[in-house]
Amino acid sequence: MNMNVDWEQRIDWAAVRKHRLQRVVDEIKANDLDAVAFTKLDTIRYAISFRSVFSLWFHGNRYILIITRDGKVKFLVASGCYERVKTSMPWITDFVAFPFVMLHGVKIVQDAFKQLGLLNAKVGLDMLPFNVFSEMQRTMPNVKFQDGTPVIDKARRIKHPDEIKAIRLAAEIVDIGMETVMSMNKPGVTEMEISAAASYAMNLAGSEETPYMPLVCSGDHGTIGYRFPTDKRLRNGELLYSDCGAAVLNGYQGDIARTTVVGGKATNEQKKIYRCMVDMLLTGQNSVRAGVSTAEIAQACQGAADKVGLGQYTYLGIVGHGIGTDIHEAPSIGDKVGEGEAVEHLIENEVICLEPGILLPGIGGGHVENMILVKKNGCEPLTKTAFDDRLLE
Amino acid sequence: MNMNVDWEQRIDWAAVRKHRLQRVVDEIKANDLDAVAFTKLDTIRYAISFRSVFSLWFHGNRYILIITRDGKVKFLVASGCYERVKTSMPWITDFVAFPFVMLHGVKIVQDAFKQLGLLNAKVGLDMLPFNVFSEMQRTMPNVKFQDGTPVIDKARRIKHPDEIKAIRLAAEIVDIGMETVMSMNKPGVTEMEISAAASYAMNLAGSEETPYMPLVCSGDHGTIGYRFPTDKRLRNGELLYSDCGAAVLNGYQGDIARTTVVGGKATNEQKKIYRCMVDMLLTGQNSVRAGVSTAEIAQACQGAADKVGLGQYTYLGIVGHGIGTDIHEAPSIGDKVGEGEAVEHLIENEVICLEPGILLPGIGGGHVENMILVKKNGCEPLTKTAFDDRLLE
Repeated sequence: MNMNVDWEQRIDWAAVRKHRLQRVVDEIKANDLDAVAFTKLDTIRYAISFRSVFSLWFHGNRYILIITRDGKVKFLVASGCYERVKTSMPWITDFVAFPFVMLHGVKIVQDAFKQLGLLNAKVGLDMLPFNVFSEMQRTMPNVKFQDGTPVIDKARRIKHPDEIKAIRLAAEIVDIGMETVMSMNKPGVTEMEISAAASYAMNLAGSEETPYMPLVCSGDHGTIGYRFPTDKRLRNGELLYSDCGAAVLNGYQGDIARTTVVGGKATNEQKKIYRCMVDMLLTGQNSVRAGVSTAEIAQACQGAADKVGLGQYTYLGIVGHGIGTDIHEAPSIGDKVGEGEAVEHLIENEVICLEPGILLPGIGGGHVENMILVKKNGCEPLTKTAFDDRLLE
Repeated sequence: MNMNVDWEQRIDWAAVRKHRLQRVVDEIKANDLDAVAFTKLDTIRYAISFRSVFSLWFHGNRYILIITRDGKVKFLVASGCYERVKTSMPWITDFVAFPFVMLHGVKIVQDAFKQLGLLNAKVGLDMLPFNVFSEMQRTMPNVKFQDGTPVIDKARRIKHPDEIKAIRLAAEIVDIGMETVMSMNKPGVTEMEISAAASYAMNLAGSEETPYMPLVCSGDHGTIGYRFPTDKRLRNGELLYSDCGAAVLNGYQGDIARTTVVGGKATNEQKKIYRCMVDMLLTGQNSVRAGVSTAEIAQACQGAADKVGLGQYTYLGIVGHGIGTDIHEAPSIGDKVGEGEAVEHLIENEVICLEPGILLPGIGGGHVENMILVKKNGCEPLTKTAFDDRLLE
């Protein structure tokens, strides 16, 4: 499905690119900004299809993308990626090489701002090194820097039909990863052997990278939330929890979680936990439709746990999130910490993930998660890996 | 080598942790700060051995680590990781759950600053969402925020002997990845098949994650700098370039690059390019010792290319970098763009990577890269994969 052919209509990437850039420009205007200067990699990828080799782990960030309200695009690109842009991305026409340590490139940022007429403008920012921001503000005192994140958060939620095609493919890839986990589930195998095999299978199935190793947690390890695969070996009768986010297909991410039992039969307590998680997911899923609020969905999930007396053991973090060119996009669903979530209303054709979890120390736990396409009067789960019948009987 | 045993002295992680936290505190004092508030994942890992599940791709960052000049540590941890810290990291004693969207947690940051007596302090920052910084400054107007990156850049360069042991192991893992690349080098195999196999081999060998898929670029693709593996198939006689950074062992990264020829014999032009790259690496390597400046090393590499008339085709970016808990740490060596590099002098027992490249469009190219331990009067390469004799003959 990924190959480029002329004898069959597949994903129209040019149309997707045009849609996404227009969405950003629309939101620059809606947020009353003159321009945005974005450094987050998922944001840059969304706006101009640029895939970064240098992540935020490399001394900070290495790219700045400037987009003006009249649709001009200027890209300050890490020197290591300069030739790749020049050679293979003809739609990026205005770009300059950027140094390795971002602070050493502030003069280049100034030149770009000057050239684009932004020295007295309102410019939205996302995330950047503090020293770079300070130096930009010091050397361009008349620029009014503002929060640019609403621009990208809102732009991404309205998906082009061909974006949804790409997300469907990402869902197929994480199903392949999860089937790999299930096929290796037996006593004596290490968590890392399963995780590495799932990652490998997803790469061969079309996932371009492994943003994080599939989480594979067995036994009591499954009760401490998100935890990495280790050299712990699976034991008969334990619960095994796996989260196979994320696969990446041309930037679009996949995300799935399942819980199962290792080897033999499940205990009644394990069945209770598992049924509760699946009920939370299905109840939440049944509440999804265009217009519903994120608070209602979170309450639906929590209600299913409260009903069987496990409400206090639900996972501390969020219960769901949008998904697209970032593994977690807006909206966040059901945050329990701090000021909590900003309540949003779902939009037709956006894609969310729901991932309720029960963490019951001493017994076990985990998560179950689906990617879900929001429809006018309901929804469609995009991930299809079966739930464990032994735990549901 | 990774398992924890009591009958053999291996890496003393408690000693490493103590050393690293003390290094940060020393540099907080040396930089005349009262505290730092760090959000970069590699920095947090260095200071307190915390491994993050949420990367900077998730709406921005999700953790803030505050360290004061008298060594107090307070950790604002993403809710998803809260149970893991509580259950398995007894050395982190002061921590609170943080919400999914960082902006919704600024009140928690304020409480922490107040509790630590930092409301009138000089606090160093690294990288954070602009909206969070703005809100922190607005709600804590008497805090003097400053650039905190020199603290971590300098702290990390002085390595504990047990850190060097860990880096040696990371080097062994990337050698395994590179041997996997070499063993799969034949016509008809896709770049991605090789990359995925190398990643898988490194995971099974102890690499805890795949920060980016091993770069595998064949033929003319090798001439456009850092480029991702694709469905392109290797062809007889092409140059094949691979960069198997990064493996990760308890946070310590490995990094290696090699270039080879696919199938049959190499052309004289290919040999010339390859000999030049290897000469650049070995000449640079021979110049490494404690006290030498990064500028001298960069000049040594460039000089080897100039000597054979290929000086204009050297890779645009840097020629080398420090390595440790970040894949690229300070110092940067030989940046050609912007204000260029900040010249530094190497320190005994720090570890750097040199990775000279030649990119000759129409002919081919690539990089070769070693991890190198800096010694008092010379150096020791830590990566051992052989160069291709067919290209050197």
